[in-house]
Amino acid sequence: MRDDITILRFEVIDLRFPTSDTLDGSDAMHPDPDYSAAYVRIVTDHPTLEGRGFTFTIGRGTDLCVAAIKLLEPLVAGRTLRALRRDMREFWRTLTSDSQLRWVGPEKGVVHLATAAVVNGIWDILAKEAGLPLWKYLCSLSPEEIVAAIDFRYITDALTEAEALEMLHAQSAEKLARMRAIEGRGYPAYTTSCGWLGYSDDKIRALCRESIADGFNHFKVKVGADLDDDVRRLRIVREEIGPSRKLMIDANQRWDVEQAISWTRALASFDLWWIEEPTSPDDVLGHAAIARAVAPIGVATGEQCQNRVIFKQLLQAKAIEFCQIDACRLGGVNEVLAVLLLARKFGVRVCPHAGGVGLCELVNHLVHFEYCCVTGSEEGRVCEFVDHLHEHFEAPCIVRGGRYQSPTMPGYSSDIKDASLRAFSYPNGSAWQARKANREGVHV
Amino acid sequence: MRDDITILRFEVIDLRFPTSDTLDGSDAMHPDPDYSAAYVRIVTDHPTLEGRGFTFTIGRGTDLCVAAIKLLEPLVAGRTLRALRRDMREFWRTLTSDSQLRWVGPEKGVVHLATAAVVNGIWDILAKEAGLPLWKYLCSLSPEEIVAAIDFRYITDALTEAEALEMLHAQSAEKLARMRAIEGRGYPAYTTSCGWLGYSDDKIRALCRESIADGFNHFKVKVGADLDDDVRRLRIVREEIGPSRKLMIDANQRWDVEQAISWTRALASFDLWWIEEPTSPDDVLGHAAIARAVAPIGVATGEQCQNRVIFKQLLQAKAIEFCQIDACRLGGVNEVLAVLLLARKFGVRVCPHAGGVGLCELVNHLVHFEYCCVTGSEEGRVCEFVDHLHEHFEAPCIVRGGRYQSPTMPGYSSDIKDASLRAFSYPNGSAWQARKANREGVHV
Repeated sequence: MRDDITILRFEVIDLRFPTSDTLDGSDAMHPDPDYSAAYVRIVTDHPTLEGRGFTFTIGRGTDLCVAAIKLLEPLVAGRTLRALRRDMREFWRTLTSDSQLRWVGPEKGVVHLATAAVVNGIWDILAKEAGLPLWKYLCSLSPEEIVAAIDFRYITDALTEAEALEMLHAQSAEKLARMRAIEGRGYPAYTTSCGWLGYSDDKIRALCRESIADGFNHFKVKVGADLDDDVRRLRIVREEIGPSRKLMIDANQRWDVEQAISWTRALASFDLWWIEEPTSPDDVLGHAAIARAVAPIGVATGEQCQNRVIFKQLLQAKAIEFCQIDACRLGGVNEVLAVLLLARKFGVRVCPHAGGVGLCELVNHLVHFEYCCVTGSEEGRVCEFVDHLHEHFEAPCIVRGGRYQSPTMPGYSSDIKDASLRAFSYPNGSAWQARKANREGVHV
Repeated sequence: MRDDITILRFEVIDLRFPTSDTLDGSDAMHPDPDYSAAYVRIVTDHPTLEGRGFTFTIGRGTDLCVAAIKLLEPLVAGRTLRALRRDMREFWRTLTSDSQLRWVGPEKGVVHLATAAVVNGIWDILAKEAGLPLWKYLCSLSPEEIVAAIDFRYITDALTEAEALEMLHAQSAEKLARMRAIEGRGYPAYTTSCGWLGYSDDKIRALCRESIADGFNHFKVKVGADLDDDVRRLRIVREEIGPSRKLMIDANQRWDVEQAISWTRALASFDLWWIEEPTSPDDVLGHAAIARAVAPIGVATGEQCQNRVIFKQLLQAKAIEFCQIDACRLGGVNEVLAVLLLARKFGVRVCPHAGGVGLCELVNHLVHFEYCCVTGSEEGRVCEFVDHLHEHFEAPCIVRGGRYQSPTMPGYSSDIKDASLRAFSYPNGSAWQARKANREGVHV
């Protein structure tokens, strides 16, 4: 048995899938996404053990994240896994506090997305070394070890280290029983697949029926481009799903505050559970004003909320009823842990953002951990599921009967198949070269 | 005379000055800055007219901004100056709303800093074409034209287009008289040069006396590393400047909220005018809590506040008494205009951040415009001045008698000398090559 393992270097890949060709996943603000990942292989001196991490992007700009990950490499290379395990907080802070790089953040945008990729890759390798899927690895840590991974800087006015520790200790006794329970039944998922803009009546009805047959009880519809069209699609969906299933809407930041209020009110008769991303992800006070005005419809946001400081304020201001963490927008697992505990303290439900490429794989671990160690409840909680691009993963998430099944393979489910890495690396992968040749052929 | 001018392409330069060698400008969070600029030359089909824009950075990460500027090039190349003048709002929104790039922002961090460089370069060329320094070019625009450059998305709950127009119209009658007045006397500056961490007593006293002799009446001291040392330096500065001159402190985001309150109170006996950057630039509610607790000391922040949405909230929450816009952190002139008008509406004084490389050159235009067209007052307003790296500019700012003198050369004062561009381009410029050779020599 080896004494310790040392990180040698990064191999970083600009990975893009040409999803804009089919317009899967387009919304009011992002009409032509190429689902992408800035993907990092963390190479060690061990013959087989390698960390894999990524941040999700949608095309242009992936190269910026790739370059930022490379800038973080010198802060990671040479570290041993033992030293990392011993001080995950210091490690995280080293990445987010680089004295020069922080100027172009700090803790937001490109550099923070890059931090997420690296941090996720480190947790992947630690879990793999332990032979556990990430959620079980997190469950294997003591409350003290969890708290020691969190940077409490800028959040102590809302959550102290002592409070976090107390919350985790209070849940410890139930942990093992919950792990057994969730492995049996999984965690509730919801689907966005029926509700994209631009679908015909027939397509919406067919997708709703399919999703109901698949066991889903929560349905999300994209809104905000045209009120009449929103009414049309919501009427169809509500007819199909009946009065008892939950219906949510998602505006993808389309509105200003006043418009968000009036538009949401205009749709309220469809018995909406939440309005997601009604306005700018930076607008804490705006979300709070909307929340007051549209209650009892809850406000949900998070997929573009840049860090724990924004989530802290959303919670302090009672601006959200649903906390939509993103596994890559936040600075990886360490910062997700901070937000899970903040949400728990404020009594707000976490319903992670997923979709894109790989986000479903990641958040499945996070909700499993949260259930076992933080909340012990799935009451009113659902985790987003979009059925895209899972085929590229070595351990794709499995959703059955409307529920995420528990991950079993060691690591953070972030291993993308070698063939996919080769085909979709941008711009020289075989899929992109073939597409280019094809287009040039068409234009001749 | 030419009919119109078309933008052809960008030439982007990674420009870094090795200021970490001397530790000029180091603070509690940024101990070793290499003052830098992602610098763009906007090349046109005109034989001599070229736009120059930049964003300020401090070393690592400049390359990310350079790459982001290049990603914006296709959104700008091919546009004519006439078309730009006709719809500056649409132009700005095109840059900030790119459907794929916005994912790695939106409107924050690397991509927003890059937007600033490009947008500043466009205003530079428009002012040059008009034969006016930028501030006079802005003054030459009608209230309607100013408002037409502003993207009101996400701020209409605080400031509508109609309100902005009314505010500008109300100032119009005084504009010409103010332009004449400010050209005679300039605009008040303050100095940070006496107050860096780590200076000896004698050095502090000498610098204070120098600054008083130079006509300064406002003095800023860096704090937050060590309370005893802060007391020592503040006592010296207050002794030197006497009871009537203003004394400010700057914590560079060092504290959590509670600590900011207790530390500031511990220094309050030195009669402080403002506490700058007490905590995370993202923490609107935190700044508001600090403001309530430390009054009558005012809270100041802004140099790392990412966009108009954050400033809007700082104003709505009464979190700041001094609004420290940054000419490059905000998305260039268009977004600065939005924040100037927001601040005016909320009755908050704008005291721009400057220093680094080139920021003094830029903000001088902004305070000149603000005085002439927005406020008509310099009461309680000061613009930061740091005496660094001005020698590299074709039209360096001039501060005399503690006041910024009015820029006279056409454009936005963003032209850096060709020799400096060559010497300090990173990593192959002659200054960097010489430094490398020198270091290698030392190590042999």
